[in-house]
Amino acid sequence: MLKDTFARRALTLKSSEVRELLKLTDSEDIISFGGGLPAEETFPVEEMKILCNEVLSENGAKTMQYAVSEGYDELHKIIAELMGEKGITVEPCDILITSGSQQGLDLTAKVFLDEGDVVLCESPTYLSAINAFNPCYPEYMEIEMDEEGLIIEDLKKKLNKNKNIKILYTIPDYQNPTGRRMSLERRKALMDVASNYDLIIVEDNPYSELCFDGNNFPPLKSFDTEGRVIYLSTFSKTVCPGFRVGWVSASKEILKKYILLKQGTDLHTNFFTQMLIARYIEKYDIKAHIKDNILIYKKRKDTMLDSIKRYFPEGISYTDPQGGMFLWVTLPQMISSRELLVNAMKRGVAFVQGSAFYPGGGHENTMRLNFSGLTEEKITKGVKILGELLTEELKK
Amino acid sequence: MLKDTFARRALTLKSSEVRELLKLTDSEDIISFGGGLPAEETFPVEEMKILCNEVLSENGAKTMQYAVSEGYDELHKIIAELMGEKGITVEPCDILITSGSQQGLDLTAKVFLDEGDVVLCESPTYLSAINAFNPCYPEYMEIEMDEEGLIIEDLKKKLNKNKNIKILYTIPDYQNPTGRRMSLERRKALMDVASNYDLIIVEDNPYSELCFDGNNFPPLKSFDTEGRVIYLSTFSKTVCPGFRVGWVSASKEILKKYILLKQGTDLHTNFFTQMLIARYIEKYDIKAHIKDNILIYKKRKDTMLDSIKRYFPEGISYTDPQGGMFLWVTLPQMISSRELLVNAMKRGVAFVQGSAFYPGGGHENTMRLNFSGLTEEKITKGVKILGELLTEELKK
Repeated sequence: MLKDTFARRALTLKSSEVRELLKLTDSEDIISFGGGLPAEETFPVEEMKILCNEVLSENGAKTMQYAVSEGYDELHKIIAELMGEKGITVEPCDILITSGSQQGLDLTAKVFLDEGDVVLCESPTYLSAINAFNPCYPEYMEIEMDEEGLIIEDLKKKLNKNKNIKILYTIPDYQNPTGRRMSLERRKALMDVASNYDLIIVEDNPYSELCFDGNNFPPLKSFDTEGRVIYLSTFSKTVCPGFRVGWVSASKEILKKYILLKQGTDLHTNFFTQMLIARYIEKYDIKAHIKDNILIYKKRKDTMLDSIKRYFPEGISYTDPQGGMFLWVTLPQMISSRELLVNAMKRGVAFVQGSAFYPGGGHENTMRLNFSGLTEEKITKGVKILGELLTEELKK
Repeated sequence: MLKDTFARRALTLKSSEVRELLKLTDSEDIISFGGGLPAEETFPVEEMKILCNEVLSENGAKTMQYAVSEGYDELHKIIAELMGEKGITVEPCDILITSGSQQGLDLTAKVFLDEGDVVLCESPTYLSAINAFNPCYPEYMEIEMDEEGLIIEDLKKKLNKNKNIKILYTIPDYQNPTGRRMSLERRKALMDVASNYDLIIVEDNPYSELCFDGNNFPPLKSFDTEGRVIYLSTFSKTVCPGFRVGWVSASKEILKKYILLKQGTDLHTNFFTQMLIARYIEKYDIKAHIKDNILIYKKRKDTMLDSIKRYFPEGISYTDPQGGMFLWVTLPQMISSRELLVNAMKRGVAFVQGSAFYPGGGHENTMRLNFSGLTEEKITKGVKILGELLTEELKK
């Protein structure tokens, strides 16, 4: 009875391999480079115990009642300040709290995408952005990337060829999956192109706080004088992901649509955890907290890079991310990361095959490795196993 | 630049009048019958202080980490038990935790609805269900209701006339907005029709715990031997709404689609509050808690009904709900509840005009009154003001 009943989008669904892999990470024996888990030891558990009590005592039942879709006022103010420090001028009322930054993507699809509309994105791009956009039936055009981010000439070529382009989706900072950071020149050039072509940019920025070399570039939104950049971010990587608190900032005209669509989507984001995060930032030194996190992540990235250099055979290239949580590996053409994954799982190691990050598929010889959620010991051990498998494979 | 950029669904958006009215309820001076707020005094604030500490101490960083989309295992078990008490046989793995029951509706649209697909619903129906479904561009066919719920003959007529029907959306218990409870005979007849016409039923059940006369009928899902009922519910009315924890239960084949679409929508529901609610139910007596709530709600409903009888002029009909949070008023044909609302707002009273609950509009002479979120004093005062305005109006 169901074949004709499901919507088309439900018929073609595949599980996110990342999410499925997450289920495996519960098992202590598996070394999973597949997830995108922040390091648990960075979560302010003890502080939250104190804050829960304070927030409930001071605000009483309001913490547990229905609330407005826009989100908690105090948190809007805090976010406006945090964005100000990045060179973005924004008023608290120009911010919508979302149930994680993932919901910002779901709402983006709802606001902009009808069937057949074109989304421009980096090649590769964030797997779960594709999953969030797909229910609205868009098409994708992938923009080629190099170490400096998306390639402007390729972007122009695609803009010239297509009339139905609605948005450009980009992660300029420590991109998921490649770990790349868009150069300053590229950022400026991209904003020029957007202005010339009247293009809406969706800037997804979950990772910029996790900068290893102290050399962050300003967000695209900071260059935006025309209200054409929609800025998505989250507390998932700076406080914790389990509370599901992110945000969207956009021009008033655009944000109004996000707010209205948010209402039908889940009414509002959990108010208690919005309050907890606001209070955490007011009371504690989040800058120092992030600095501590960076030390952990950088050390893990260095460990991964050192292990790759030590254990991977020749002929394999990889990024050296200056921030974020992921490293991108390109294997020789003839090696399939899908086959590698099957063999690796047998030896207790998981990762995500790179093809999952290309809307058009292909690129079977790529893979994404997460370094943020694993101890250095596990990283070394896991990379060593991958290296052994790759060495065997190359001998064939 | 934006007119051609927004999706069609974003161009026609109207704000939910209920949500906009919610914003007004912050003002102490307004008597708002417009929202759907549970009574704040029922929220277990003190218990939560204890539970926050326990959950964080026992589970540590896991409370704050990314989690699986399906939700918290312990909560699945608790829900399966609660559903079992209602005569529904369900395994924990047949339950998906959602970010409030509203998200269950958003996911329902994603799983079933393509442009032009038909949703059958009660006339009137829950406003925010329409808002949740609309982004997928369905059409609606309203099924006429009487005091026993939707009218089976009208349902059959519409089923015979239409080929593109995907789902029937119904709230059998203390329906929002009318407060009506579907009779047992109607429930059985509906299930027969569904089987004969191979119809999928979405049973939205947020209110059945709030039963005033101890005379709940079994949910539709309890009669379902063919996996054709999708059951949505929530802890919003039994514990608290601000935590945004609801659930969907369906056959494995259907639920799998919900889970996959949940991933792209917000990855997973806030894990900390899932744990808090699970622990609350394990540790405290939720049955006794609900009993206390019922006493409050019943008293408020009685107060509203008494006030209506006392202050409303002749010629106005209204429901006498045996549960839930809403009462439905039908004014004489020539009175517009929209105009009444404008005048009422001037005197500090708000409600939702009934036409908002009809996908096809019309029915300007109806209105929804919420009684759960106001003190008896406010209810009496607000109904008196409405009565005065109606008396004036009828004299014209």
